Amino acid sequence: MKLLDIFGALKKDIDYIERQLYDSIEGDDELLSETSLHLLKAGGKRLRPIFVLLGGKFGAYDLEKLQYVAVPLELIHSASLVHDDVIDDAATRRGKPTVKAKWDNKIAMYTGDYIYAKALMLATRLNNPDIHRILAKSMVQMSVGEMEQIRDFFNIDQSVRHYLLRIRRKTALLIAISCQLGAMAAGAPAKVHSLLYRFGYNVGMAFQIRDDLLDLCGTEKMIGKPPGSDMRQGNITLPVIYALQDKEIREPLLQEITEIRSGHDTRRAIEMILSSSGIKRAEELADRFIDKAMQALEQLPEGKSRSHFKEIALFVNKRSY
Amino acid sequence: MKLLDIFGALKKDIDYIERQLYDSIEGDDELLSETSLHLLKAGGKRLRPIFVLLGGKFGAYDLEKLQYVAVPLELIHSASLVHDDVIDDAATRRGKPTVKAKWDNKIAMYTGDYIYAKALMLATRLNNPDIHRILAKSMVQMSVGEMEQIRDFFNIDQSVRHYLLRIRRKTALLIAISCQLGAMAAGAPAKVHSLLYRFGYNVGMAFQIRDDLLDLCGTEKMIGKPPGSDMRQGNITLPVIYALQDKEIREPLLQEITEIRSGHDTRRAIEMILSSSGIKRAEELADRFIDKAMQALEQLPEGKSRSHFKEIALFVNKRSY
Repeated sequence: MKLLDIFGALKKDIDYIERQLYDSIEGDDELLSETSLHLLKAGGKRLRPIFVLLGGKFGAYDLEKLQYVAVPLELIHSASLVHDDVIDDAATRRGKPTVKAKWDNKIAMYTGDYIYAKALMLATRLNNPDIHRILAKSMVQMSVGEMEQIRDFFNIDQSVRHYLLRIRRKTALLIAISCQLGAMAAGAPAKVHSLLYRFGYNVGMAFQIRDDLLDLCGTEKMIGKPPGSDMRQGNITLPVIYALQDKEIREPLLQEITEIRSGHDTRRAIEMILSSSGIKRAEELADRFIDKAMQALEQLPEGKSRSHFKEIALFVNKRSY
Repeated sequence: MKLLDIFGALKKDIDYIERQLYDSIEGDDELLSETSLHLLKAGGKRLRPIFVLLGGKFGAYDLEKLQYVAVPLELIHSASLVHDDVIDDAATRRGKPTVKAKWDNKIAMYTGDYIYAKALMLATRLNNPDIHRILAKSMVQMSVGEMEQIRDFFNIDQSVRHYLLRIRRKTALLIAISCQLGAMAAGAPAKVHSLLYRFGYNVGMAFQIRDDLLDLCGTEKMIGKPPGSDMRQGNITLPVIYALQDKEIREPLLQEITEIRSGHDTRRAIEMILSSSGIKRAEELADRFIDKAMQALEQLPEGKSRSHFKEIALFVNKRSY
């Protein structure tokens, strides 16, 4: 199920952004176009461009302008996935081989560099230094978040707070600025940007928690890669942190995690986590973030765009496993 | 020998930029600061910041502003080296272990991502979208150049033109915009930017040719890494392309290159190239680029800054092997 099925209203504009996305990485170098297109064509929810367009509705909506925020944000997201797959040694993403698997790590590295640079280059078509600043700053935060993730691989002593800080940088900030920059590019009032930022930040947090839940509770068909991938690569996510707080489960789960580290499969660890309160508690925290997102929304002018934002937030938080 | 020894006049300002360079990568994440500082502290000629400062002298010189071009340009250069060392599997750079050797490829990848993003973030302190645009565009070109280099590894059939296009993207463009952006940030007239761009471009081409010559003719002490590194990693440079045009040398040299590819040392190949006309012809081409750089300089207003630019161009082209 794709988010874009939700709104017929935006369909034409989303299709336009999709074409601009493909066009943006054509023409510089054949191999770079091929590697860059590879991931983009594998799909994705295009959550960030959709948020940009919806945010633009709070100001003077102009698709010609908004594209220079929508396309860069999706490109930054894609570049981060390409580099992420190098770190995770991931073979598949969105049900297709990753760039690093189809080509190699080195080509994946430069593909990511290229897409990042291209994203910023496109954003500079807008003569708005504030937008350039916010984009560059969020890329700094994302790379810090990625580094934290590497350092925390198999760190079984991390706190919930630590996890939340990491997903804030890794995921939530980019979604927050997607909501914000659409409104900003459309010249909406500052109060609107900051409410949309707050909305996006909270939706982003819920989104990542849901994503981490899906990796434990979903099927390979649903998530485009084998479940338990996070655990295999040592990424200790919220449900695992909660499960480790359960006295009866902690010791056997730690034992399983040690064995996963030496190549054992994740089946038993996942069973333990599912039998703990970890799933429920993580779901509750995601719900709380969605509540906060809704509170920010309520302060925005009523209308179609606000309802669409609400629909997406509920969609993101749907228990689809 | 360091370029900064050449001018006492700029010493104080160059030291300031040096401190800002270190400060720029402090405070986000301990590991990222450590990995980023590692390369920066190993030295380097700071050619790009020096060009920025000199370019600034053609307008309203303001160090507070110029730092937001000088630091980003050196950071972009550094980030490209960190990623480059991943590709080249390089163990040392500037006489010290590379980030990829001291830590690993993955950490080197995110270190580069972080430094790139930080560079752009700093540049956005200037409210000049043209500058942001030129920086982002040059990063796109650099990543295209890097990809071309990977693809051309051990391509013994490449033409001189092909080589020149590659080093243009890989090296010359960043040096060109270093000269240009200093003048631009200082509000110098457009005619000055474009002459400085042309000067920088031609110096950059000569610089890379000299660098490639040094890799064949220099000693390990001079170049901070073992000579012949380019050949070992399959990077076919100008003197090699010229040597391969020499009928008597072509076949035995091709044979040696094949053996280098399977791990043989580069000693005999280097001897062959030194005995060919390849070195002399490459030097002549570097000289021609320096001549063109001088022609651009002559059209700029006379003065101290112009003489400094001239000194650097001559320094870059000095046969220090």
